[in-house]
Amino acid sequence: MHHVYIEDIADYDGQEVTIKGWLYNKRSSGKVQFHIIRDGTGIIQGVIAPNAIGQELYQKCDRLPQESSVILSGRVRADERAPGGYELDVTQYEIIHEADEYPITPKEHGTAFLMDHRHLWLRSSKQQAIIRVRSEVVKACRDFYDERGFVLVDAPIFTPAACEGTSTLFETEYFDTKAYLTQSGQLYMEAGAMAFGKVYCFGPTFRAEKSKTRRHLTEFWMIEPEVAYLDLEGDMRLAEEMIVYIVQRVLERRHKELKTMERDTAPLEKVVPPFPRIRYDEAVAQLVKDGLDVKWGDDFGGDEETVLSQQFDKPLIVHRFPKAIKAFYMKTDPEDGRLALGMDVLAPEGYGEIVGGGQREDDLKVLGDKIEQHHLPVEAFQWYLDLRRYGTVPHSGFGLGVERTVAWICGIPHIRETVPFPRLMHRLYP
Amino acid sequence: MHHVYIEDIADYDGQEVTIKGWLYNKRSSGKVQFHIIRDGTGIIQGVIAPNAIGQELYQKCDRLPQESSVILSGRVRADERAPGGYELDVTQYEIIHEADEYPITPKEHGTAFLMDHRHLWLRSSKQQAIIRVRSEVVKACRDFYDERGFVLVDAPIFTPAACEGTSTLFETEYFDTKAYLTQSGQLYMEAGAMAFGKVYCFGPTFRAEKSKTRRHLTEFWMIEPEVAYLDLEGDMRLAEEMIVYIVQRVLERRHKELKTMERDTAPLEKVVPPFPRIRYDEAVAQLVKDGLDVKWGDDFGGDEETVLSQQFDKPLIVHRFPKAIKAFYMKTDPEDGRLALGMDVLAPEGYGEIVGGGQREDDLKVLGDKIEQHHLPVEAFQWYLDLRRYGTVPHSGFGLGVERTVAWICGIPHIRETVPFPRLMHRLYP
Repeated sequence: MHHVYIEDIADYDGQEVTIKGWLYNKRSSGKVQFHIIRDGTGIIQGVIAPNAIGQELYQKCDRLPQESSVILSGRVRADERAPGGYELDVTQYEIIHEADEYPITPKEHGTAFLMDHRHLWLRSSKQQAIIRVRSEVVKACRDFYDERGFVLVDAPIFTPAACEGTSTLFETEYFDTKAYLTQSGQLYMEAGAMAFGKVYCFGPTFRAEKSKTRRHLTEFWMIEPEVAYLDLEGDMRLAEEMIVYIVQRVLERRHKELKTMERDTAPLEKVVPPFPRIRYDEAVAQLVKDGLDVKWGDDFGGDEETVLSQQFDKPLIVHRFPKAIKAFYMKTDPEDGRLALGMDVLAPEGYGEIVGGGQREDDLKVLGDKIEQHHLPVEAFQWYLDLRRYGTVPHSGFGLGVERTVAWICGIPHIRETVPFPRLMHRLYP
Repeated sequence: MHHVYIEDIADYDGQEVTIKGWLYNKRSSGKVQFHIIRDGTGIIQGVIAPNAIGQELYQKCDRLPQESSVILSGRVRADERAPGGYELDVTQYEIIHEADEYPITPKEHGTAFLMDHRHLWLRSSKQQAIIRVRSEVVKACRDFYDERGFVLVDAPIFTPAACEGTSTLFETEYFDTKAYLTQSGQLYMEAGAMAFGKVYCFGPTFRAEKSKTRRHLTEFWMIEPEVAYLDLEGDMRLAEEMIVYIVQRVLERRHKELKTMERDTAPLEKVVPPFPRIRYDEAVAQLVKDGLDVKWGDDFGGDEETVLSQQFDKPLIVHRFPKAIKAFYMKTDPEDGRLALGMDVLAPEGYGEIVGGGQREDDLKVLGDKIEQHHLPVEAFQWYLDLRRYGTVPHSGFGLGVERTVAWICGIPHIRETVPFPRLMHRLYP
């Protein structure tokens, strides 16, 4: 019989099909058994009568542990009451493997236990929904740039030098020298933008931060566009347009998953342009008004971001920060020498920063001086300085963190569930 | 005036536009100058008359070095003879930055010099074409799986243990322990396939090989699908279908780039199913017949792959290798205990292996024994063994190396040019 995936079952109403999957749940009415089968694409209820498969197999089915692998054949029948909306009147039931007693049960488990069993936990409906949203977010990010003629320029993972200090870098022996794992592809994207006009990279990045907050992973994915001849205003528009695109895509295509997670979609539906934009100065004034102990020149932490983002029902763009708290490559605001032309986007509902970026320093002399002031090894940056020697232009870009974006869209508190196999300070297994 | 990208110029024939780019080349007829401008999306010829922009600026333009950044405005006019097919009758010419003398000249440069200037070399037409083909290959890979309902399950980069021995692993301090950079996401994809049915990962992988061949990088990208309830035959069909999809996509959408590289597309047009399939046994017999010093049990190197692949005008699938030369996780052929259910795909025209994969061992006892025989740390593999404890099923997958695939499609001899910033044993800069 024809093997079909459960996600396509509606096309086979009334037909005989074969389903290959795992036993997700079961109950018995005495006369028949109802087996809920999952195959990774959906669930379907198999209705099993003893005379259809024989008494001996029927008894065996009744004792079959959860997550046993099974192949079922039968006729598909629409039934509103069934989980998934369809039932299968089973005519053949084959047990591929009788599982050991499954460790994840409907009772509450602690996070450490679930994370130790992440390879199995991924089979549960909520985790499935999150990873499917993640898959859609990644696709939306790439489609957004591909549709706009951006060229994918993969940034290297091994880098010879640090972009923003060495304290949070992972280091590795690289034959007879040392290499560091990238924290950002940005510098390479600047070279890409000078070659291709509009580029992006999308890959894993690494931070050896001794941080245990709900917003940090040691390994996370970031998409980083970079555009030649783009200024800060254009950069903010690009980020806004992209975030709207991602959220709309998930609302359109992952409605079922959002429902599984019981995500209130009303806040997501409000994510339309224009996003509010406030200057750092205004943000500080607002925070002080709200009673926070913040003064001009301070960097914002999670608390400040939460307070700011909760005042709007859309993502909030904060721009023009004190240059002392920003990276060496940011361009100084020509209208106020204390400020850098940077911007962050804070997700609403208290989720905090999901985007950081801005306009880059494009003057050779100024950039060279900044590299010295930051005590960075100037030799390692010669190629980067070359971009200012041979046809320098105004240019801007940003990075969007995938895990934080997925956490916000899914409405889950900790980003560790937004990645299939999270890596944290104390988590390297499985 | 309206800023347009050169790739869209055909939509603006007869209109006034602004182009923002770099001076790629120039010549003078005495009365007018012809400036070829690139903006990363294409090239256009600007026709500059002294009375249009003023004598002083005209003189300056005449001395302007290559790769200076410029903004030109004028009317678009179709002209078959012009490089790119369009000319711009320039009415405004703004010099943004006068470049230093550009180090990459039309004369021959050595590879080391070009690689040291990779950040600039990417501006040349052939390198642009290669990276655009790469961008398309990556998109085709992802689209192929996304269209077929596969879920993206990103594999971790930091792993606690080695999949195939530790000699070629990059190691890093991970807080109070050690971590290794992934060589393959496969084991994690197996967990993914049991959860989602059909999954793939696509990310950088790492090999600390002291190898300087034209087929090796220390950092390369790999796409790895994994499917539950798929056997070796199905796995070979999936690989075949994917390779056809990728090649067709590049032929359709990157014709211009292939032409720039002077790639003969006739061999690519022959890449249609079915691909020839031969058993390892037959491959050895063929190699012996061709006079190579190979005996049953040997692994194939670059030379053997080249000889085999040159005998066919399509990719060649070699399957059922001696299990002694294959990884511990490969399933033993039930019809011949000496063999593993593995398969490689060799690209034609002598390019060698681009895909490696096969059916995985799904029996708990057999897999446990193999882990012991290979002296692997069994504790680190408990989660992997769990996949055989809780509903094990036949399953298969493979990995396709992006750089080797791009090298073949582009017809270039060394894979170092297929990645924006290659990482080799002696190459970590820029």
